[in-house]
Amino acid sequence: MASVRIREAEEGDCGQILRLIRELAEYEKLSDQVQISEEALRADGFGEKPLYRCLVADLPPAPGDAQGQGIGSTIIRRVAQVALDQGCSQFRLAVLDWNQKAMALYKALGAQDLTEAEGWHAFTFDGEAMRKLAGK
Amino acid sequence: MASVRIREAEEGDCGQILRLIRELAEYEKLSDQVQISEEALRADGFGEKPLYRCLVADLPPAPGDAQGQGIGSTIIRRVAQVALDQGCSQFRLAVLDWNQKAMALYKALGAQDLTEAEGWHAFTFDGEAMRKLAGK
Repeated sequence: MASVRIREAEEGDCGQILRLIRELAEYEKLSDQVQISEEALRADGFGEKPLYRCLVADLPPAPGDAQGQGIGSTIIRRVAQVALDQGCSQFRLAVLDWNQKAMALYKALGAQDLTEAEGWHAFTFDGEAMRKLAGK
Repeated sequence: MASVRIREAEEGDCGQILRLIRELAEYEKLSDQVQISEEALRADGFGEKPLYRCLVADLPPAPGDAQGQGIGSTIIRRVAQVALDQGCSQFRLAVLDWNQKAMALYKALGAQDLTEAEGWHAFTFDGEAMRKLAGK
């Protein structure tokens, strides 16, 4: 396993974070849903009232694919530590039903599939639906 | 339809909010999952860095059930207004698959079922799973 250093993201990471968001969306076949800009990522995460926190895994330069090196598990463990430190009672993830690899990893680490177990569905009002609702 | 006044919650509402959380959980057959106390609701929502915001619907005293008076739609419209004002690009809800009444209302108001349409599942690490992950 490669030696991974996990740290809090800094504003200067936003370009790389956006690149990874786009890579993930491409894998999820949902690229059309990525509308956020680097500027918005900077403003949302590093303004006076941050709307998100982000951890970054720094890897030493190495040839080949970063998959299968335990980086996913390492970063999930760190998120659990942060969540406990913040007094959170749960740590939730959203995953696509065809992404069996991710599902298997989360279950192996102790997560429960609430959609399967209890029947939870995620609903969304998108921008247009919100504007209609709000009468704007 | 009863005349409804919707306002931001105040710290003094936390007792009533907890009562409604418990009523909802009872309806959802998930009462065992409500572990939060009124003190935690006060601390989480009304401290220096609030973790949630809450809208409250004040109803004039009236006999009978509050259901079917359009209060749900009214409060959802208000949430959409708040979300737009805050620059949100989506407004999400979680709903149980047997709660057809809620699902029908959300769809009628313009929401999309992402679990049905794209296959999103909600995963959770509970407290014990988080502590195991974090090695605590």
